[in-house]
This record gives sequence, structure tokens and C-alpha cells, in this order.
Amino acid sequence: MASIDLNCDMGESFGPWTMGNDSALLDYVTSANVACGFHAGDPQTMHHLVAAAKAGAVAVGAHPGLPDLQGFGRREMVITPQEAYSLTVYQVGALAGFTRALGIRLHHVKTHGALYQMTARNVALADAIASAVRDVDAELIVYVANPNMAQAAQRAGLRVAFEVYADRTYQDDGTLTPRHMPNAMIEDVGEAIAQVRRMLHDGVVRSLNGNDVPVVADTVCIHGDQPGALAFAQQLRAGLEADGITIRAPGSACMTDCM
Amino acid sequence: MASIDLNCDMGESFGPWTMGNDSALLDYVTSANVACGFHAGDPQTMHHLVAAAKAGAVAVGAHPGLPDLQGFGRREMVITPQEAYSLTVYQVGALAGFTRALGIRLHHVKTHGALYQMTARNVALADAIASAVRDVDAELIVYVANPNMAQAAQRAGLRVAFEVYADRTYQDDGTLTPRHMPNAMIEDVGEAIAQVRRMLHDGVVRSLNGNDVPVVADTVCIHGDQPGALAFAQQLRAGLEADGITIRAPGSACMTDCM
Amino acid sequence: MASIDLNCDMGESFGPWTMGNDSALLDYVTSANVACGFHAGDPQTMHHLVAAAKAGAVAVGAHPGLPDLQGFGRREMVITPQEAYSLTVYQVGALAGFTRALGIRLHHVKTHGALYQMTARNVALADAIASAVRDVDAELIVYVANPNMAQAAQRAGLRVAFEVYADRTYQDDGTLTPRHMPNAMIEDVGEAIAQVRRMLHDGVVRSLNGNDVPVVADTVCIHGDQPGALAFAQQLRAGLEADGITIRAPGSACMTDCM
Amino acid sequence: MASIDLNCDMGESFGPWTMGNDSALLDYVTSANVACGFHAGDPQTMHHLVAAAKAGAVAVGAHPGLPDLQGFGRREMVITPQEAYSLTVYQVGALAGFTRALGIRLHHVKTHGALYQMTARNVALADAIASAVRDVDAELIVYVANPNMAQAAQRAGLRVAFEVYADRTYQDDGTLTPRHMPNAMIEDVGEAIAQVRRMLHDGVVRSLNGNDVPVVADTVCIHGDQPGALAFAQQLRAGLEADGITIRAPGSACMTDCM
Repeated sequence: MASIDLNCDMGESFGPWTMGNDSALLDYVTSANVACGFHAGDPQTMHHLVAAAKAGAVAVGAHPGLPDLQGFGRREMVITPQEAYSLTVYQVGALAGFTRALGIRLHHVKTHGALYQMTARNVALADAIASAVRDVDAELIVYVANPNMAQAAQRAGLRVAFEVYADRTYQDDGTLTPRHMPNAMIEDVGEAIAQVRRMLHDGVVRSLNGNDVPVVADTVCIHGDQPGALAFAQQLRAGLEADGITIRAPGSACMTDCM
Repeated sequence: MASIDLNCDMGESFGPWTMGNDSALLDYVTSANVACGFHAGDPQTMHHLVAAAKAGAVAVGAHPGLPDLQGFGRREMVITPQEAYSLTVYQVGALAGFTRALGIRLHHVKTHGALYQMTARNVALADAIASAVRDVDAELIVYVANPNMAQAAQRAGLRVAFEVYADRTYQDDGTLTPRHMPNAMIEDVGEAIAQVRRMLHDGVVRSLNGNDVPVVADTVCIHGDQPGALAFAQQLRAGLEADGITIRAPGSACMTDCM
Repeated sequence: MASIDLNCDMGESFGPWTMGNDSALLDYVTSANVACGFHAGDPQTMHHLVAAAKAGAVAVGAHPGLPDLQGFGRREMVITPQEAYSLTVYQVGALAGFTRALGIRLHHVKTHGALYQMTARNVALADAIASAVRDVDAELIVYVANPNMAQAAQRAGLRVAFEVYADRTYQDDGTLTPRHMPNAMIEDVGEAIAQVRRMLHDGVVRSLNGNDVPVVADTVCIHGDQPGALAFAQQLRAGLEADGITIRAPGSACMTDCM
Repeated sequence: MASIDLNCDMGESFGPWTMGNDSALLDYVTSANVACGFHAGDPQTMHHLVAAAKAGAVAVGAHPGLPDLQGFGRREMVITPQEAYSLTVYQVGALAGFTRALGIRLHHVKTHGALYQMTARNVALADAIASAVRDVDAELIVYVANPNMAQAAQRAGLRVAFEVYADRTYQDDGTLTPRHMPNAMIEDVGEAIAQVRRMLHDGVVRSLNGNDVPVVADTVCIHGDQPGALAFAQQLRAGLEADGITIRAPGSACMTDCM
């Protein structure tokens, strides 16, 4: 029976400032990627989110980013692999403090923003981050869409969950159509569901050019901070479930044992 | 056979700025209290220090502080118990990331600066911090000198190591003579060694007024950032060892098993 | 002819996080108190807001706060008068960079949050902040409600604009009814307008106990971050103007000359 | 009569951490480039340094950097020209708060670290920074060694002081020999003095290849944070003065009038 995960970046509030609609989205997703205090998030926000995710049986993952709160971790910075290693250990460790405090296991890691973009091109950075994740906890699953980071995670002996998009179109090379180009977004939920269904059942996505491109779909990235995000998540989940697809986090057996 | 621990605050460099003489002090102390990035420390500094402590078989503890880098965590801030809980979990968790990455166990927690001072007067804060430590890892030992925090740690079911000073004089009520008062400091190493020896063998310290005041001495706080700190640590350790006192971290059995 | 100022805290967004509804409120207020990057605000936010305030002929003031972004400057910190002096010079200077860059004058200073609360009780802090403001620009007007800070500003030779509230009730001693007490808020705009009218025309406010308490009303504090804030500001302004009251920033003659 | 300026980056301490030997160096340099709180420096440090520079009649300049305290502003970040503009206005404005408070004029601006390196290649960034400086104060002098930034400053109508190095060798294209290459550094003070003398009197520097390369020498960059820095500065100044060269900040007439 086919299954897939729905993941969403969460915990991106900071101090008095709110971002996203975490508590509502936790009803629809099965994985929460939690900001760890560098690009967003703070100890209180992390604590509340991990507690809410536990209550909703949503898998908790770390979402480490660059140390650039003002730029939300979206501005590339020139950092060394050693710096990437250390900031990953720090952030994953900090979030793991909250999962341990609440008696659940940290489940996965998904790198944020510019740090993630940099791993797509820089093998040494990707390897450093993968080593950091493995060294903190070799059971963690790496959520990733770019092949460079995926290979680094696999070299480190980590499990990988390949991430796809329901609401974005693809190019012939398997990459996303850049947002500034026409037809980059899929706004019709029915089309989005159909795209995920083909990914799951046939292992392909129809590119903008009309070609079937091979794709591995373990987890669908849900955007939480856009208007209509909640309705989209709700309808996507309902549509996939109506299709007989189980919505669950990857490596679920371990989740049952450990949480 | 009598034994005692020598602990020192370390990892208080930040980015390009160096503080203390960590690598040399690691030769003389048996416990390192490592800054966790809020009042001092950064991921690179933490990583290097934990690796060096492991190499020297020095027990690694977390030294969480207030989120006030500019003030070095020495300015009291009005925070809620819930905030104290979360910032403790975050910082202890972050450091535990590095100990796990390096294959050693996090050993203890000692609260820093104004956060520590606040626990001496505020039971709710002390309880919140103790709960945070226990929730992250109930095996952690709390290093503490003030009775309020010690009792909070014990209420939380944690082991406590009572901290004493070799180079400070005491009042009749068991508190330290404030630094601005005459004879607050003991500058002669021989006197310092004698003070620790009486604490260990007789369970008392001679107060400035000449009275014997009961004291529990599990760990001696060594100051790392003062001129002569290194020589003092070296001579204190040599003097205690010459006296037949074993210098080791508390709960050493567990350290042997786990590190 | 009676006149009064309407002031509002603004520029409290930070990086990707938005707070308040600054562009709409600028249509109704005559003074903007702009966060300066310590408790909120960042260089981009400050630049955009000063430009918008200039476009709307709204007087620009600095709103310096404690260096506590996560706590939004609302957590008291123990700082020295010298620290208060320096952080005020820094923040007022930074905002003055933007007013000069845009060819307008910085008009006033209103201290934020816990830093303001601390000036109500601590004369040395109040004097340090007043000296900082005067040393940067002796023409700046200090907006203030607490007598301690007002006197410090006057001792420093600065002009003071006394701040009142339209939507809060008063006690017999001239202080605001604390928010947690019954009848602390005035929700009816008509009542709020009537309260301001009496303050202006009669120099008194009717306390909750029914006594007339003397009050100086130079500027009314508008809250920007609450539901209904915009409608309240709009109606308050319209109501006061319908009453023949001119809405303008204090020291307006200087504004006309200098902007 | 030939004259030249000696400038040094200063005020790079932060909170409890000290860097450099500012008070001693102020005896030998004529321009202080003061960190403004983003890559280093804090309000207290800035205040003390500006007061000490005033006491020593040393010209005070702003040394704005990237918002990366941990990386000391040495890690390149992808920022927009608009961000560069705003962070320059903010930092220059903040320092100008202290010069105004102390009754002196802000004299110059020298961009720090990676922000400076980026202006060497990115015309839009260089123009944004130059515009920011001019908009805050069109009398400010820009200290610069890279032609791209120099041209941007001149396009903005600003005066430029060309910076040279006494202790670094040059390539045929007028750039510095990279530090990792042989003979990059000039360690003999006599050679350093001779190099500056030729720059001043002949307008050339002898490259490592033995060619005379044209160079404009308005100000010599002194490094403050290296062992021997103080002795080097002292001997360089004495040697140049013995040669009849006046050591003074550029635009001195204005300094006399305004300070």
C-alpha cells in the first residue's frame, strides 16, 4: 500500500513575532521541520511546537539554518565545512534537548534556506552537514530534494527521504521550475493531487515540456506561510487519502517504537 | 580515600575573541563547565573544547546563561520560570549535541552568572532550571553552591555536587565574603590548600570571624580568566595530590563506563 | 486654539516578521516612535518607515529599547547608567542617520518598554538617558508619562511632551489603571474622545473613583498592534478634529522650518 | 611639505572581550576607524573610544561591517544594494551619535572586512554604500584601496583618501601580494618606511617583480591586532617624521575648524 509524508517548515516565529499557522497545520502534516534559533525560532517557540507536535503524533525534525536572523537564513554566507558541521550539531542538539525533555525521538533533519541551497553545489558543505547529523544521531532521516545533499547523506550512512512538491512544476532535468517563470506554480489542488499520485504510483512527474521524468517521492513539502496554505494542505491530504494513500512519516516503525 | 573535583568555566571565547586559557587549564581540572552560546561560546568554540576535554579525560558540563552576549550573562533579567526552563533545555541540548557527536556523555550542569544568582533567591526559577536539566537527562549532576538551587535539584531527583572555593574566604553563614570586602580573597596557595583540606577531612571551613562553619566540598571552583590562574590551579592540584587526595570528577564510576 | 499630537510606536517589524500596520496608521498619527534595532526594527525597516513618515509629514522620533530582541525589550535588565547612556546615544544616532539621509530632522525620543518602566523608578537611569538625548541633539523633545523621566528631561534642558491615553482609565494619583483591573480600558471611542477633550480644555481627567485629577496632555499614545487600532485612531482623530482641535506634533513651528 | 595619515581599525572589542590595544595605538595614529556594533564594537566600547580619540586629537571614522558578529564580518554574505545602503546609514549614524555627543565631527568612513571586499567586485554595492555615506554627511572622506569603491565614492561626490600599506608588498597591477604567497609581508621597519617614502615622494611602489607601479598614498593602514603592532606603528611614525613628513589626517583644515 502506497504511503507518503507531508512535511512543513514550522516554529518560525521569534520572540513577539508570529509566522505561519503551526497549530492548525499540525492537523494535516505528518512531519514538522522545526527552526532551531539561528534563522528563526527561539527556546520558547521550540518548546511549544515540540509539545504540540507530540500531541498530534507529528514527527519532529530539525530545520537548521545560517546564523542570520535578520535575513531569515536566506542570504548565502561563505562558511567553512567545519563551521557548517558545528552549527548543525549545535542546532540539532538544541532541538533534541526538547524532544528528549518531552519523551519523544528526534526524527529527521531538513536544512533551511541558503544553507540548503549551498549544499546543492558544494560537496564539502554537504558532507560536513551529513557528518554532523550522523554524529549526533545516526538514526535521523535526512529530508532532501537536491542530489548532492542526498548523496552526502547516503555516504554518511544516513537514510534519505526524497522530497517533492505538489504545487510546483518540474523541468526536464528534475529540478523545479523557478518561481519567476511562467507556470511555475500549480494552483489547482486537483492537479497537485494528480501530480503526487503519479509520483507515487509511477515514479515519474510530467515536466512542463510534457516529458515523464523519474522522481522518488517520500515526502511532500507543504508551504505554511502563504495565504490558502491551510486549505491546500487539508485538501491535498484528503485527496490523497481518498485515493487510498496512507499519510505518514517515513521510517514509521521506528516512530511507533520510540515515541 | 578522600577525593575532590576541580571545575572551571571554559569555552567563554566568542567568534574572533579569546577568553581564558582553556587548553592549558584542561591539564589541571577534572570538570569543564562549557558556555553554550548565550552569554559566551559559539558552535566552533564548543566543538573544539569538547574535543579537547575528551582528549584530556575531563568531564564536560553545560554552563547555561542568560541570552545577553554583550553583558556576558552578568546582568540580571526578569524572566519567567517557563523562559528559564526553555533556555536551559536549549543550551544543555546544544552542548549535548557535541558530546554525543564526540562519543562522550554530558556529565553535569552549572548555571552561569546572573542566571545562577537569580536561582539563589527565586525558588520558581531554580525549580524550572532543575526540571529542565532532569527532563533532558536525569543522570546529569548539578554543580551548585547556593542552597536554594541545591534543594531544587534534589527535589527534581538530580544528584548535586556542592561547590566550594579555595581562594575565597567564608562568612559565618557559609556564604562567601563579598569581593569588595577586606580579606575576601585567599592569595596564598598554601592557605588555599589548607582550606580545601579541612573542608574535605573535617567538613568545615574556618570563617573570617574564626568560627568553624559546616560545608560540603564536592568540587572546587577554579577561576580561569585571572592572571596567575594557571599557576594557582597547578599548585592547588599538586598540593592536594601530595596530601593523598584524589582529584576526579564526581560520579566517576559512570564516567568510566560511559566515556 | 487647542492642539494635540497623536503618537504611535512603529517600525517594530524585524527581518521577515511584520508587526503592526504602519503605513495605514501614518495617515492618522502625527508622531511616529521608531524602533531602533535593539528591541525591534532593523536598518531596512527603519529606512522604509522614515521615508513613509516623511511622505506623510509625520514627525519622526526615536524609540530606543533594551538590547533584548527575543524579549521585545519588555524584560527588565539590570544596566548601569553608563550603559543606558551609551545605548541611547547609539540608537538615537542610528535613527538620526536615516532622518539626515532623507533630509528631515529627528523630532523626539520616547523610551520603550522595560527601559521606560525602569526610568519611572530609577533617577540615575532617567538622568543618563536624558543626558544622552541632549548630548546627541538638544532640540529633541522627550515624550513621557512618568514624572521621574519628565523631571530628568527637564533637568537636562530638554523640552517635554506629556503623554496621555485616550483608551485607558486613570487612578486618583494620575497613574493608569493597571490592565488586569476592571475598567482599565475605554473601549467606546466617544468616551475616549471626551476624555481627551477634558484633558485639553480643562487640564483634568476624571479618575475611576470619580475625582478630577490634573493632567497635562501634549500627545496621545495610540496603540498600533491591537485589533481595531486603525479604526480607533481614525475615529479618535476625526472626533477631535470635529471638535475644533488641531492634530499636530509638538514644536510644530520647528518642524515647518526644518523639514 | 609632504604629509600622510596613519589609520587603524579600532573599537573591535565586544562586551567582556578585548581586542587590540586601542589606547596605546591612539598615541601613534591620526585616524581611528571605529567598529559600529555589527561585526564588532558595542555602545560602551564606541563611547570610550570616541572619547579617547577626541582626547588624542585623532580623527574618528566609521568602520561599518556586515551583521555577523560571530564571523567578525569576514564571511561574505549575499546582500542587496538596498541592504548595504541601510546598514551603512545605520552604523555611520550610530557612531555619529557619539561624535556629536562628544562635540566632535565624524571624519571618515572605511568599510570593513567582507563588506569591503565585496565592494571591490560589485559596483552596485559600492554605489549603494557611497550613496549612504553621502546621504548621512557629504563631508565624510572615504578611505579606500580598491578602485571600484574609490570610483563609487567619487561618483557620489565624496572625497577619497587612498590607502596604502607599509608592511605589505605589491604586485604589478597595484594590488597587494596575497598573504599566503612568499614575501607578502615587509617585516623590516626600515624597508616599510622606505616604501612609504617612495609612495609619497615619487608616487610609485616597487612591485615584487621589480617594477615601479603608480600609487596614490593618502593614508597608511596600521594593523592593531598583531604582535609587535605597537612597536611597528611607533617606529614607522618616528621614521616618517624624521624624514620631514607630517603625520596628519586628510582634510585637516576642516578638522581644525570643526573639532
